[in-house]
Amino acid sequence: MARIVAEYELESPLPLEHAAEVIAGEQSSGTFVRLPGETDDLRARSGARVEQVTVQETRASPSLPCKRQGDQCQRGRIRISWPIETMGPSLPNLLATVAGNLFELAEVSALRLLDVTLPSAFADAYPGPAFGVEGTRRLTGLAEGPLIGTIIKPSVGLSPEDTASLVQRLAESGIDFIKDDELQANGPACPLADRVNHVMRVVNNHADKTGKKVMIAFNITGEIDEMKRSHDLVRDTGGTCVMVSLHSIGLAGMTAIRRHAELPLHAHRNGWGLFSRSPDIGISYVAWQKFWRLAGADHLHVNGVANKFSESDDSVIASARAVATPLFGEGPDYLAMPVFSSGQTALQMGASMAATGSNDFIFCAGGGIMGHPDGVAGGVASLRQAVEAVQDGVSLEDHALHRPELAAALKAFGRQVQ
Amino acid sequence: MARIVAEYELESPLPLEHAAEVIAGEQSSGTFVRLPGETDDLRARSGARVEQVTVQETRASPSLPCKRQGDQCQRGRIRISWPIETMGPSLPNLLATVAGNLFELAEVSALRLLDVTLPSAFADAYPGPAFGVEGTRRLTGLAEGPLIGTIIKPSVGLSPEDTASLVQRLAESGIDFIKDDELQANGPACPLADRVNHVMRVVNNHADKTGKKVMIAFNITGEIDEMKRSHDLVRDTGGTCVMVSLHSIGLAGMTAIRRHAELPLHAHRNGWGLFSRSPDIGISYVAWQKFWRLAGADHLHVNGVANKFSESDDSVIASARAVATPLFGEGPDYLAMPVFSSGQTALQMGASMAATGSNDFIFCAGGGIMGHPDGVAGGVASLRQAVEAVQDGVSLEDHALHRPELAAALKAFGRQVQ
Repeated sequence: MARIVAEYELESPLPLEHAAEVIAGEQSSGTFVRLPGETDDLRARSGARVEQVTVQETRASPSLPCKRQGDQCQRGRIRISWPIETMGPSLPNLLATVAGNLFELAEVSALRLLDVTLPSAFADAYPGPAFGVEGTRRLTGLAEGPLIGTIIKPSVGLSPEDTASLVQRLAESGIDFIKDDELQANGPACPLADRVNHVMRVVNNHADKTGKKVMIAFNITGEIDEMKRSHDLVRDTGGTCVMVSLHSIGLAGMTAIRRHAELPLHAHRNGWGLFSRSPDIGISYVAWQKFWRLAGADHLHVNGVANKFSESDDSVIASARAVATPLFGEGPDYLAMPVFSSGQTALQMGASMAATGSNDFIFCAGGGIMGHPDGVAGGVASLRQAVEAVQDGVSLEDHALHRPELAAALKAFGRQVQ
Repeated sequence: MARIVAEYELESPLPLEHAAEVIAGEQSSGTFVRLPGETDDLRARSGARVEQVTVQETRASPSLPCKRQGDQCQRGRIRISWPIETMGPSLPNLLATVAGNLFELAEVSALRLLDVTLPSAFADAYPGPAFGVEGTRRLTGLAEGPLIGTIIKPSVGLSPEDTASLVQRLAESGIDFIKDDELQANGPACPLADRVNHVMRVVNNHADKTGKKVMIAFNITGEIDEMKRSHDLVRDTGGTCVMVSLHSIGLAGMTAIRRHAELPLHAHRNGWGLFSRSPDIGISYVAWQKFWRLAGADHLHVNGVANKFSESDDSVIASARAVATPLFGEGPDYLAMPVFSSGQTALQMGASMAATGSNDFIFCAGGGIMGHPDGVAGGVASLRQAVEAVQDGVSLEDHALHRPELAAALKAFGRQVQ
């Protein structure tokens, strides 16, 4: 019988083995008293099972406020499994099972979901990314190398006309990819339909002239029917990508738009800090991204190396690799493209290429392009030059000697990044 | 110009005022460098504004791992406002604005969203609960007093036939409300359609005989189209309620089912521990429940007094009151019914009634009914007797002297609760 397996980092004032059993009971057939109908046969058939418990350390006091008391806390790894027969291959119900009420238990003084391993029934139920790396390269006409991208900045406050004229300058700079900021949605100050119409006129004209169609990830985050209409408008005006804020629309929202969409889904993870900032409560990116890839994310944000946020480079690199790791042992890989962003400039390109071990990623520089001293063309050129430097095996400084755009980027951004 | 106001608890290694400005910039027009297009006029029109900063304490070291360093950390309250023109009255985009990337900032060593105050445009855009207290009382035929309810237990593992026979016994015990456990969804072991058909036959027969129709919250959590079909099946078989796991379906999923539904939406908050367990990162229930009431939740889980989880009674009571507080200064109140659950028995009824200051709540006892020594009828009777005791102003112990069911509950559950 196929089982779902979840791995956690757990801390408890009780012996870890006992706490693991409480979690398994709470998240399957049990409650705080043994009930008449909870027979041994029912438990064997439907119960969650503790597969492994590894105590790694003991702590003198609980990391999170905790009702249960103990002389000390044990902390370590546990693995719990569930029969898929209970919830079926359903992402929303999987989430309620592996990341539901367990975080609230009085027996838990720290709990992080580290990973989840799914039976192939999920592959049968969910189509995953429709475009991924190959489809994105096809639509952008970029056969190799990282996609050089940016975010419309200022994030908010530009009119549709202003946005289009910025896109014009960006397109002329040779950029591959542009996204709306996640704060720019469909408000009266810059209605999405107007923005799409103005921007796509520019993009289409540029494509007619040069043969290069810039991929614009329009932020269609909203209600289901609204997102479907917005997607259709983007498609009908010749657009090649839409963006959604994952936490805002939820898993059911994501699968609904995936099943409707004919364009790549650029998936923004804003709000992710809620799950990642505390070492004592949350979900690892490795586990989290599996849900959204199954649900259909083509591009997944992973923050950036030397980012302006609080995340370590090791964590960013692990996330970028996770997105490019096959989801199942066999069958389709469900690979998404990692998206690097947050305070990115030419200085971080080399580390990003090293992190992924490939060039199959989107590199989004906001200030690094828009704030480049020579303007957006200088910003884009500096990023291409950084890619060349890595490919040629020379240092950025040496490569910048005869490349003024890269030199200007090193001078302007060196201080912020280092 | 109408503005959205959010209040946070913030800690930072920088002066709190500075950190608040970083958040306001990051969450509106700014980025890590000031950009050419970010004019003073644009900032005034579109920027977020720091409205208030109150330093409450200083701490020697950051509460969460934090890239920025300082000699000490300031901690306190801040209020930030946004013009609604940017995102419009859209719940998904509101979430990305007030609870988006800000949690990840390097300048933040603790951050909790405490409250959000919304302009009336949100009332125009979202219908809110369609049933609430009044509609739920109408459908259950219970004019006054708390709704006595339970959760199907064992949570998982019962067949549709088993579930129906348990519902039969519960209906005969005089219960008002029964819900699926959030772990019981639509898997092959107990398909929802079979469960609905079997259970509703029992419920309808009982209603024909007695005039009392038990409200069953069938867990329809799933994909959008699946939820709509499941809702229609429940409605067509005479059912009067459906349940969804909010974090599993997301805001877009919730509003989609709300706009389709003709039955009350019983809203489960499993996964809530992710936002509430740490004192240093998260969202308060006061802020969180406003999103889901606007989205259409009729019944909202608030945990229970003396619960089996880690939450304090003060927090539970504040949550129950929040759900029953009008959302806007004028116009419709958007009141939802608080749902008490988690280790609830007759012993907690009095505190729950005192907490709400009304009887307009659902009291869900799983083990407290199913695990009652005299069986489910004893469990239900013990809860009704506990309500009587409070209403008569006598102690549970005195009231139990001539009421064996209440006496048995006190004896069986006293140890667990106290």
